[in-house]
This record gives sequence, structure tokens and C-alpha cells, in this order.
Amino acid sequence: PSHLDLAVIAGDGIGPEVVAEALQALHLAVRDEVRVSETHYRLGAEHYLESGEILDDATMDRLAQHQAILFGAIGGAPNDPRLAGGIIERGLLLKLRFAFDHYVNLRPSRILPGVTSPLAQPGDVDFVVVREGTEGPYVGNGGAIRVGTRHEIANEVSVNTAHGVERLVRFGFATAAARPAQKLTLVHKTNVLSHAGGLWSRTVDRIAKDYPQVAVDYLHVDAATIFMVTDPGRFDTIVTDNLFGDILTDLAAAISGGIGLAASGNINPDGAFPSMFEPVHGSAPDIAGRQLADPTAAILSAALLLEHLGHTEAAGRITTAVEADLADRGEARRSTSEIGTAIRHRITSL
Amino acid sequence: PSHLDLAVIAGDGIGPEVVAEALQALHLAVRDEVRVSETHYRLGAEHYLESGEILDDATMDRLAQHQAILFGAIGGAPNDPRLAGGIIERGLLLKLRFAFDHYVNLRPSRILPGVTSPLAQPGDVDFVVVREGTEGPYVGNGGAIRVGTRHEIANEVSVNTAHGVERLVRFGFATAAARPAQKLTLVHKTNVLSHAGGLWSRTVDRIAKDYPQVAVDYLHVDAATIFMVTDPGRFDTIVTDNLFGDILTDLAAAISGGIGLAASGNINPDGAFPSMFEPVHGSAPDIAGRQLADPTAAILSAALLLEHLGHTEAAGRITTAVEADLADRGEARRSTSEIGTAIRHRITSL
Ligand SMILES: CC(C)[C@H](C(=O)O)[C@@H](O)C(=O)O
Ligand SMILES: CC(C)[C@H](C(=O)O)[C@@H](O)C(=O)O
Repeated sequence: PSHLDLAVIAGDGIGPEVVAEALQALHLAVRDEVRVSETHYRLGAEHYLESGEILDDATMDRLAQHQAILFGAIGGAPNDPRLAGGIIERGLLLKLRFAFDHYVNLRPSRILPGVTSPLAQPGDVDFVVVREGTEGPYVGNGGAIRVGTRHEIANEVSVNTAHGVERLVRFGFATAAARPAQKLTLVHKTNVLSHAGGLWSRTVDRIAKDYPQVAVDYLHVDAATIFMVTDPGRFDTIVTDNLFGDILTDLAAAISGGIGLAASGNINPDGAFPSMFEPVHGSAPDIAGRQLADPTAAILSAALLLEHLGHTEAAGRITTAVEADLADRGEARRSTSEIGTAIRHRITSL
Repeated sequence: PSHLDLAVIAGDGIGPEVVAEALQALHLAVRDEVRVSETHYRLGAEHYLESGEILDDATMDRLAQHQAILFGAIGGAPNDPRLAGGIIERGLLLKLRFAFDHYVNLRPSRILPGVTSPLAQPGDVDFVVVREGTEGPYVGNGGAIRVGTRHEIANEVSVNTAHGVERLVRFGFATAAARPAQKLTLVHKTNVLSHAGGLWSRTVDRIAKDYPQVAVDYLHVDAATIFMVTDPGRFDTIVTDNLFGDILTDLAAAISGGIGLAASGNINPDGAFPSMFEPVHGSAPDIAGRQLADPTAAILSAALLLEHLGHTEAAGRITTAVEADLADRGEARRSTSEIGTAIRHRITSL
């Protein structure tokens, strides 16, 4: 059997609960085709408050040795002043995305049979957001002067490079070309952010020439939110920047069955660094430890991980099992582990 | 009777059609209490393509003399290369917002009786977005080097000042305090944009002390889009920056009956410059000139204009008439002028 050497960052809040289910599903799904070893890293807000460490260089080096990272969720109590300013998000999650050059943040959205959305029917929604992960307003290139005075000025700089935009857009076109609908929508705000918008539009126009079979269109981000609600079926492959992608993918989750089902991959397509897979949802400290979280998004993230590493059959077993579970889910409220167990039964009997 | 000296910028696409209905409603609504004079300014993409002028200083000076501006919509064909980079949006609409210091961009959302939303019932949604209008990523403080080469770098700077944030937040609290629910939600992305986010959060915390009766909470912009879909009733007064406000208000329109109903005011509360009222929708060149646009958003914008200038009764007549029309609207498709006429009949018979 081949070997899969996994790093696991379960994190805070509901992270450990949902990751536990995801790992069990993954182990079952690979059967005896893959030998999985997992190394757990205790990182997150809780760890920081105990140790004063967020993510040191030695840990980074060790994480870099694994083939992939399964990530739960991080973040403590929203009003804890010791965690203000996104210190954990920026020092841990974003640090990993940037250091491991996760320039593709891949977030598929589908309304699966059995899932009720107020806005569309199963089958109507099937798109993927290809969100840039290493540039834009996320680069931490901001600053403030005269902080706390009447003369404070706080700036945030969105940095966009030809290198960064081109590789993301190329990935977007390759993604679109491999999908049945073969349609790519650039989402930006070119009428206001004209410099960044110019770079993004020109790059899409140029690379479109290499993909004559892909239909291309453009939406301003504000208009894109309207279509998400009124006509989500119009989307196939959305290519967008880091911040717009953040906003659109939460909205996409909301319209296609909820944030409990949305999986994502932070991908380094070159393979120089391990890619990282995580549910789109956060650590939800308010419901943590009570078996209330839906582990489906984490379980589907494990499927994306397996798929990314070429374990296509194992990945398929997880998605098939999740789809079967969703189709039968009904209205009854189940606990985190009940959902995990039900999905495992399906994986076993496949 | 008092006098109302109005500037009108009908603009492009459906702008002139909807503004025509709004003006007729306004004239009827003021009865003989207010003498209205209107001066039309031909501005927009069409005017620019004919004349090469977007908005010159002499026109700015003349516009500044009016008491208020009624604005339709601007923008030409989306793919016209002569209009790329938002040249009209930035040179006309944003220029006016900045030059006339429209620091409050006020956008109310309600699901009115008779309006069907897939997501909520009439009465469930009743909030107002207090969007900053003169700062943030809209300041035009970006640039690019090595444009068109493999080494292009395009930056966009979001500028946030204590002065700008404080006056907006104060307006937000005053707005919340005057509403029955007395609740203010700051929307930002403090976990990523920590400098700007810090200024916004600290400002809200400080000014909250002057409004102990107002309940305050905070949401990241991505989470806010989820609640817009799953629980829009949780919102009362949303205070947010220029870009997040742009995105959220289109989404808010989508969930509360559509962009055809969403009115807005670009307000200079100090009164040093004329405030400007406009439907949230764009110029929709694809349906222009065919009497397909819903003039309700423009008509409600005229009501906001009257309200702002203290003509409360006249404003109330318009909203009452629109509410009555919506309640009876049914499924039949009516033309722009049919809707305008129906609302005018209601205004007359009040
Ligand atoms: C936690 C936060 C920094 C993160 C982001 O903004 O990217 C999250 O919202 C996400 O979408 O993965
Ligand atoms: C046309 C555009 C510049 C404008 C904005 O982004 O503010 C519009 O979307 C709006 O919301 O009024």
C-alpha cells in the first residue's frame, strides 16, 4: 500500500470534534490501499493562551515535511481582548497559507439531493470558487499612525502581482475547462479598484485565448451577490481575489445548504509545500464541546485532501457516503458523532 | 410655499426612465406646500462619449448650489473599452460623493407587505445600512508599476481616518438610537484587516458609551452575508465601510424584494453640500428604453430626498403610496410608466 503522511491541526472550538469524525472517515475510506500516519499539532487560540506561542519556525519546518494538512478551525471567544486583531487567524491560518504558497483556495458549492435551500433546487447549484490565497488585502501590508488619537490614519494595502494573478487565473481556466459547463466568471470591482481590476481583467482576457472552449464573463462583486441569491445556477467557475472570495464563499455556503457542508482546499498546485484542507466554517466557540456541530464539511474536506493526493477512489467513497447520508438526512437533529457514524456505515458498506 | 431647488442627473440606460417617474411622483407629493424647480444636468457615459467631458469644475460649482441632487444611474455598455476601469463611475458618481463629502451612504432595507422574498416574510426584515462614503478602498489611492509586463504590481490602498470613521459611527449610533430595535452591528474584517479594523472597533466601543440604550455587536463581513440569508431579522442598524457596504447593500436588496426596490441617500449631514439620492441599481443598458425597469427604487429615493430636506409629509405620501402599490402588485408584469402611474394615482387620492 502507498503511504499518506498527514499533519492534523484540529484547532479550537468545534475543530477537534469535526476533525475526529473526518479522520475516522478518511481511515475507513482508504481501506488497505493507503497506510495513513497522522501527526497532531496542538495549535490555535487555546494553545496560544496557555503557551504564548502561535506558530514557531520549528513547527513550521515539521509541518512542511508532511504530504498534506487536515485543518479544523481556530479562534477563541470573539470578545477576548488577548485575541484581538485576528492575532491567531493571521499568525496561524494565514501564515500557513502564505508560507506554504497556497495560492489556490478551492471552494466547491453544490446543492446535493436531500439538502434544502430556500433559493434553489438540488442540481441547480454546482459551481466552484477559485479564490486567490496569497495576495490581495490579505498580505498584511497595512499600518496605522497616531493610533488612538483624533488624527489616527489606518491603511490597508491590497497587493496584486502579475505572477500571482496569472497563476491563479490559469488554474481557474484549467478548472473550468475540465467541468461540463466550461464557463468562467471573473468577480472583482474593476469600476472602483481600477489598478488591481485592470490587472485581473487583462490577465483573464489574455489567458482566455488559450481556452477558446471556455465562455468568459465578468461581474462586479456587488452584482455577484445578487446573482448568488436570484440565479446561482448561472455560475460554474468563479475566479476572484482573496477578499471577494472570502465573502462570496460564505454566501455560497449559505445558499447551498449551509456552512456545515462547505469544504475547502488551500492548494499549492506546484507541490512544493503541503496543501491544507479545511471546512469553511469557523471554530464556533458558542457550540463547542456539545456535539452540535455538523462534521460534514470537515469530512468532505478530507475527501478533497484524498482527491488532491491522487487517492481518487477513496475520495469518491467519502463523497458517495456523504451524498447518501444527505439524501436520507431528513429533519431529525443528529449529534456530531451520529452524523459521523452514519457516514462511516455508508463508507463501510460501499 | 417653501422652495426646493433640485438638480437632476438622470444619467444613462434606465436612469432617465426611472427618474422621470420619480420626478412626477415628487411633484405630486409636495402638493402646493413646496415649489419645486428642477435643473437637469446631462452627464454620464453617453455624454462622455459624445463630448469627451465627464464632469468639469464649472458643472461641479453649479451642482453645489442646489439643495439636493436626484441621481438616476450611470454607465454604458459593460464591454465598451472606452469606458474601462470605471472611468464614469469614478469620474462622476464617486467624484460627487467625495467632493460633496457624502460621508453617509444610507441604505434602508425592508420587506414590505406584498413583496415576496424567498428568505423571509414581510415585517421580518427592517434594517438600515449606514455605509461610509468617502474613505476605505474607494479613495482612488492605488497604483501600478510595470503595467502589462510579467512584473506588474497593482496596489489598492484602503484609507481610514479617525475623523472619517468617527463621524460615520456617530451617525450610525444616532440612527440606531432613533429606531425601535436600538441595535447596532459593526461589520468589518478585523481578523484580517487589523489596522483599519482596529480603528473601526475602537471607535464603535468608544462611542457606544454615549449610547447605553443601543445594543452593539460585531460580525465579520463573510459571516454577515450568511446571516443576511439565514436570519436577516437579526439586523437593525449596520455600520460598515465603503466596500463592505457596497457588497452588503446589493445582497440586502436581493433578499428583500430585489434591486428594483432599493433606495439610497448619499448624505452630507453637515449640510455644507447638497446630498444626493439614487436607486441602488445600475443603468442596466441591456433593458434600457424598453419600459422594463421598475421605477420604485427611484421613487423611494425621491422620498428619502424629501425626508432629508424636512418635507416629511410629502415624503410620507410617497412611501404610503408605494407601500399600497406593492401590497396590491400581484404577479402581473407592468411597464415602468404603468408602475409610476399607479403610484401617482395613490399619491393623488391620499
Ligand atoms: C479566519 C479567516 C482569516 C478566514 C479568511 O478570511 O480567509 C476564513 O474566513 C476563511 O474564509 O477561511
Ligand atoms: C457604481 C459603483 C461605483 C457604486 C459603488 O460601488 O458604490 C455602486 O455599486 C453603488 O453601490 O452605488
